[in-house]
Amino acid sequence: MGENKRLRIAVPGKRVRVIASGSVAGREERRGPLGDTFDFHDAGDDRFGMPTWERAESEMQRLAMQAALKGAILDDGDLDYLLAGDLMNQCVGSNYGLLSFGVPYIGLYGACSTMAEGMLLGALLCGSTARRCGVATSSHNCTAERQFRFPVEYGGQRPPTAQWTATAAGAVILSSVPEDVDRLHGSFEISVSETLAGEAIDAGITDMGNMGAAMAPAAADTLERYFHESGREPASFDLIVTGDLGAEGSGILCDLLAVHGFDVAPRHTDCGLLLYDRERQDKHAGGSGCGCSAVVMASHVLRNMAEGVYRDVLFVGTGALMSPLTVQQGRSIPGIGHLVHLEAQRRPKGEIQ
Amino acid sequence: MGENKRLRIAVPGKRVRVIASGSVAGREERRGPLGDTFDFHDAGDDRFGMPTWERAESEMQRLAMQAALKGAILDDGDLDYLLAGDLMNQCVGSNYGLLSFGVPYIGLYGACSTMAEGMLLGALLCGSTARRCGVATSSHNCTAERQFRFPVEYGGQRPPTAQWTATAAGAVILSSVPEDVDRLHGSFEISVSETLAGEAIDAGITDMGNMGAAMAPAAADTLERYFHESGREPASFDLIVTGDLGAEGSGILCDLLAVHGFDVAPRHTDCGLLLYDRERQDKHAGGSGCGCSAVVMASHVLRNMAEGVYRDVLFVGTGALMSPLTVQQGRSIPGIGHLVHLEAQRRPKGEIQ
Repeated sequence: MGENKRLRIAVPGKRVRVIASGSVAGREERRGPLGDTFDFHDAGDDRFGMPTWERAESEMQRLAMQAALKGAILDDGDLDYLLAGDLMNQCVGSNYGLLSFGVPYIGLYGACSTMAEGMLLGALLCGSTARRCGVATSSHNCTAERQFRFPVEYGGQRPPTAQWTATAAGAVILSSVPEDVDRLHGSFEISVSETLAGEAIDAGITDMGNMGAAMAPAAADTLERYFHESGREPASFDLIVTGDLGAEGSGILCDLLAVHGFDVAPRHTDCGLLLYDRERQDKHAGGSGCGCSAVVMASHVLRNMAEGVYRDVLFVGTGALMSPLTVQQGRSIPGIGHLVHLEAQRRPKGEIQ
Repeated sequence: MGENKRLRIAVPGKRVRVIASGSVAGREERRGPLGDTFDFHDAGDDRFGMPTWERAESEMQRLAMQAALKGAILDDGDLDYLLAGDLMNQCVGSNYGLLSFGVPYIGLYGACSTMAEGMLLGALLCGSTARRCGVATSSHNCTAERQFRFPVEYGGQRPPTAQWTATAAGAVILSSVPEDVDRLHGSFEISVSETLAGEAIDAGITDMGNMGAAMAPAAADTLERYFHESGREPASFDLIVTGDLGAEGSGILCDLLAVHGFDVAPRHTDCGLLLYDRERQDKHAGGSGCGCSAVVMASHVLRNMAEGVYRDVLFVGTGALMSPLTVQQGRSIPGIGHLVHLEAQRRPKGEIQ
């Protein structure tokens, strides 16, 4: 008894497909290497037509979910649950952003792991009684800076280990409806085949400017548990993508796993390293924020899987579970890493739309 | 298509039992009508031995989960998931409070609906692949006052419609393990038989001092959907308990449902009205905060169900999904109500421990 909890949980019963995604990004993200892959961007001042940064972030999440629904030729009435959350106090980015969709709403708090947490729960719900779940999350540099760090106008100096909170939103739609295979656009269909929820782990990091170090031990713990339980080697995957450890955390992750005999470095990348050009864009250790892994998943990763470039992918969404207040009170920063195993299979030719 | 989403969802596959609960309360709550039913209370200054209010709240959540595990003679290794959240920015009450349990952690944000949201998700997960889930939440008057309202020392005047954030925590353990029936203490076993997730609804309320009015329309919407889909009448339940609408919101709920032909008033009560003595304790419209409905569920409601006093209960956890910032920015307050249907069945005599 008690052993089974460490087992990865295969999505039960039915095949759960990722049938659509939506991606929305700000100007800096649009300028990055993945800039051309997003469904929407704001070429102006990242306000998305709204009077406040907070409303802009909500609008981004709405646009991402709307794009995902449109991609699958569905409307909100076709979803059983919306699973969403974000970094803003009381998760108001999601609460307000998804208000216009008349769908039962399950609020999450997973910090930057929210997309993975939502996909994990959505897959388990679709594997059971739900037909379709929408998952969405977002972050906005200007809402996060003033809430977690300094007033934006202050222009505070950031350490090299600091990550840049992405102005981005991502949404995916998961489905257990077999006929939804007809809604796919690519040559490959993508399924969530396994999930493994992370345990919160506090490695004693107290530096708000080094989130990668706070989250890497949790990501390593989840991946190590996964490799042990599945019996699979890191090299057998096409891609092991974390989000978002940045440069600092990615190095620590690879080192921690190497010590335990798992060489993930050749297959590993991080959403925070993919979103910006580290030479051309001054983003220090890379991107972060709920929207970072969400937008990279909803564009680059899923798009490449739909084309068969990647067929077997581990996605580990990582979050840092502190608040500015707990850091001010001297507490260290717990991290978490939720794992979702995605697999792409070629569709029979007659099925492709 | 799209119709099914409004259907209540019966917990699939297996019987999901509520096998244990833990309840922790502060001094004011201990002084209330349910004071004798809590597992733990702090007779002193509500600090629970901690140097900050925030750590006190985390400790309360830890104590509640520990009490629930002890009640079921289980340890953390026996749980597959912890589902938890709270009102503090970034949900740090739960993030830190449950850190000592080595269990995969699913962070939630449902404001004061968190206990119902967690029980809903936990029941669906246990009905599928999970064996046991722990659900916990908390609130602390002193963490909430300074975050949402004024510095505690300021002693701000509150309007009559205001509710009092409870210093309380509650935890329950849900199980799909058939043998866990042997872990029960009462003559009745309690199951989660149905769940219905709420939709976020914005009725245009902008008054931070009247949360009941902001949440009542969402609770009414969920209950109305439930009655329509189930075909059952309010009078056929032993108890319809919301948490936490307080006096103001409870009146609005009953009025809204009466207009649509559902007379819930004779069966309805609210956790915020049960927790304090409104004559003797100066709590205005009643209690609120994630901990309010959690501690009332984890003590009074489940205890009475285990003794067969209530056999057929609808629990609608209600939350207000704003933040102080969105209210300052002039946005109205969306509410949500998640429904969990609990049923108690008498156990065969030989089974009672």
